[in-house]
Amino acid sequence: MMRTRPLKVALLGCGVVGSEVARIMTTHADDLTQRVGAPVELAGIAVRRPGRVRDGVPAELITTDATALVKRGDIDVVVEVIGGIEPARALITAAFEHGASVVSANKALLAQDGAALHAAAEQHGADLYYEAAVAGAIPLVRPLRESLAGDKVNRVLGIVNGTTNFILDKMDSSGAGYSEALDEATALGYAEADPTADVEGFDAAAKAAILAGIAFHTRVRLDDVYREGMTEVTAADFASAKQMGCTIKLLAICERAADGRSVTARVHPAMIPLGHPLASVREAYNAVFIEAEAAGQLMFYGPGAGGSPTASAVLGDLVAVCRNKLAESTGPGESAYTRLPVSPMGEVVTRYHISLDVADKPGVLAQVATVFAEHGVSIDTVRQQGKDGEAALVVVTHRAADAALSATVEALRKLDTVRGVASIMRVEGEKGE
Amino acid sequence: MMRTRPLKVALLGCGVVGSEVARIMTTHADDLTQRVGAPVELAGIAVRRPGRVRDGVPAELITTDATALVKRGDIDVVVEVIGGIEPARALITAAFEHGASVVSANKALLAQDGAALHAAAEQHGADLYYEAAVAGAIPLVRPLRESLAGDKVNRVLGIVNGTTNFILDKMDSSGAGYSEALDEATALGYAEADPTADVEGFDAAAKAAILAGIAFHTRVRLDDVYREGMTEVTAADFASAKQMGCTIKLLAICERAADGRSVTARVHPAMIPLGHPLASVREAYNAVFIEAEAAGQLMFYGPGAGGSPTASAVLGDLVAVCRNKLAESTGPGESAYTRLPVSPMGEVVTRYHISLDVADKPGVLAQVATVFAEHGVSIDTVRQQGKDGEAALVVVTHRAADAALSATVEALRKLDTVRGVASIMRVEGEKGE
Repeated sequence: MMRTRPLKVALLGCGVVGSEVARIMTTHADDLTQRVGAPVELAGIAVRRPGRVRDGVPAELITTDATALVKRGDIDVVVEVIGGIEPARALITAAFEHGASVVSANKALLAQDGAALHAAAEQHGADLYYEAAVAGAIPLVRPLRESLAGDKVNRVLGIVNGTTNFILDKMDSSGAGYSEALDEATALGYAEADPTADVEGFDAAAKAAILAGIAFHTRVRLDDVYREGMTEVTAADFASAKQMGCTIKLLAICERAADGRSVTARVHPAMIPLGHPLASVREAYNAVFIEAEAAGQLMFYGPGAGGSPTASAVLGDLVAVCRNKLAESTGPGESAYTRLPVSPMGEVVTRYHISLDVADKPGVLAQVATVFAEHGVSIDTVRQQGKDGEAALVVVTHRAADAALSATVEALRKLDTVRGVASIMRVEGEKGE
Repeated sequence: MMRTRPLKVALLGCGVVGSEVARIMTTHADDLTQRVGAPVELAGIAVRRPGRVRDGVPAELITTDATALVKRGDIDVVVEVIGGIEPARALITAAFEHGASVVSANKALLAQDGAALHAAAEQHGADLYYEAAVAGAIPLVRPLRESLAGDKVNRVLGIVNGTTNFILDKMDSSGAGYSEALDEATALGYAEADPTADVEGFDAAAKAAILAGIAFHTRVRLDDVYREGMTEVTAADFASAKQMGCTIKLLAICERAADGRSVTARVHPAMIPLGHPLASVREAYNAVFIEAEAAGQLMFYGPGAGGSPTASAVLGDLVAVCRNKLAESTGPGESAYTRLPVSPMGEVVTRYHISLDVADKPGVLAQVATVFAEHGVSIDTVRQQGKDGEAALVVVTHRAADAALSATVEALRKLDTVRGVASIMRVEGEKGE
């Protein structure tokens, strides 16, 4: 039954991930042949700087002309691990036009142009697989798209960025401030020289857009995702979290509204209870918690980045796409039939943990409580700590719309007795939500 | 693109899982249609006792003649949730012969006859999917078979039986003995009236056989799996585990030998460090830890049993199999090309935690240590506790072949100064293994 003509693979990009993909394809060629049902041949590797190519990557396959490689006409599968919008988008589109299927690890491109790329794949009868775009080696796209295809996902709650989890874990365990923890992450190679994409939540937001689209069978674009970074999380926030039996994580949260008529997707730091499975995710590990109607609560945990883990996800997709090629079929394409709209952040239902610096005199609590009541926000707990004529008031609310909660905070700022809002943090992942 | 002729599904069995499958197929019919690309019609439900059929299950579809239903000729997919060997095996075989693909939740049958069933499926160009057979709703078969298809799995370490995890968790948290914890599990519906299949490890062994076969691309039969139940785990064992910073779990462990030339599969209670992700799996939850060469360490967590979670897994498979039917293709079949043999338990490399009741007199430790040395087993730690002329000696070994460890224990039993072996427990899941 084994076909002898090999499937030809073009690899675009040969950095940390690409060189590992090339290495595994070479050293494990026999296993790939058995698992695909035909030999899989690395036919060419497009790089920008040929002088930089790593050990173990066959030099004779290197080219700087990615476009010519993709358009060669005999390529069955294009593996895109360049990242960024262009030239990745043009190359993937050209791949479909020339009869190739595509495996991509490009979260930014998928989050921005997933719908157009899926449409191009379908038009040309090709596959577009991208397990590696979300949380590295952790199977998430396939479980959501296939394992849970007969179920109804209601919530996805995940730690999908290893850099920020490393920093927050360090702050939690050592009491370090943000800058100090970031420096350590940079020194250990967990943070890039410019950490903006990670610490400001852009990377997590792209993953949230992809996960929400797949989970709810609708289209969620990067612009639809509410995003707050974690650069303003302080050691004092961690101290407050501990008092509540919580820790702080940067979470990507995708939810179906209670009435089922819309979805939301957001990325922000939040307090979660220490008993929640996500609370114990340490260092640069990722984990994603999925709640589905029939399945209940599932969690997927593993390394969310790195050359080898990402290559593992790419190769899993490569085997699947090659099998589909042999069977002259394609895997599941985009599923966006629900057309559920994405609601703005103001409609998200959540809880706030608010620390206020207030004057230490009678009547302040009553004043503050009145503001909450006027905005229809119900208070769960209040804790007062007084010293030297100043006092701190820590309020944890019940669940309410984010718009009502943020309007409450704005009104509190205007009170004479409130000297400042020391911190605001959402509280997520509690039982019974 | 939507096909209008429906795909016809025969459901065999309508107990806890089957009735939930029928309910979801009915209430979520529109979603299934969109996700499959054609309507999916429940064409018949075979039951043994038609009087027992549950609310919400269409009465007009009920039949007691499962064989006639399967052989009707117009069935596209047979969903088998009867369990047990016969008549499930005969019905599945008949389904393939009559052109249907099969989705099964039958771990006992798959573990015993997986190879023959896969061969029958392939012969008839049909699919055999069985995500629900291992750990309920937790995606494991698909991630191992597809997501990790380009990687090399070296170890699978899992809690795959909810009943025993509930009992052990209860013993751990409350200090209860085995009988007391079993009674509570029975009262709460976590244990069956006859708990043998769970507490003696038969259920977990079947899952270990299935997981090992898929993970290592070889054939592992139920008889190949070493099995010890957990009925002899005592409160004293938990006390010993705590002193070591461990807890006790019933684990299914599938490993590739260090030289890569064989595999092992086993089920037994073991101590694992409290810091291991599996240690914090509570109540009846399941979790499976997978170590792969490129992906690193992954963990999958969720409800391992129950009507709804198992139905979720069945329906995910049903959607996949229906899609394949429409595409006139099949998904990945059995992959057993490595033909790696399964080594006996004696060749497994592990560590023992041994509690000995010994005479409290000089020279006993030297005598005991000599026995270990004679068997080539190196001691990691020894702890002595004396009282009233008797003493307890707790020895934790370094890693050694199980045969050498068990021979050591036999030799210790023969020493005059050893009054008894109070407990033996393997230690697993440590770093650097």
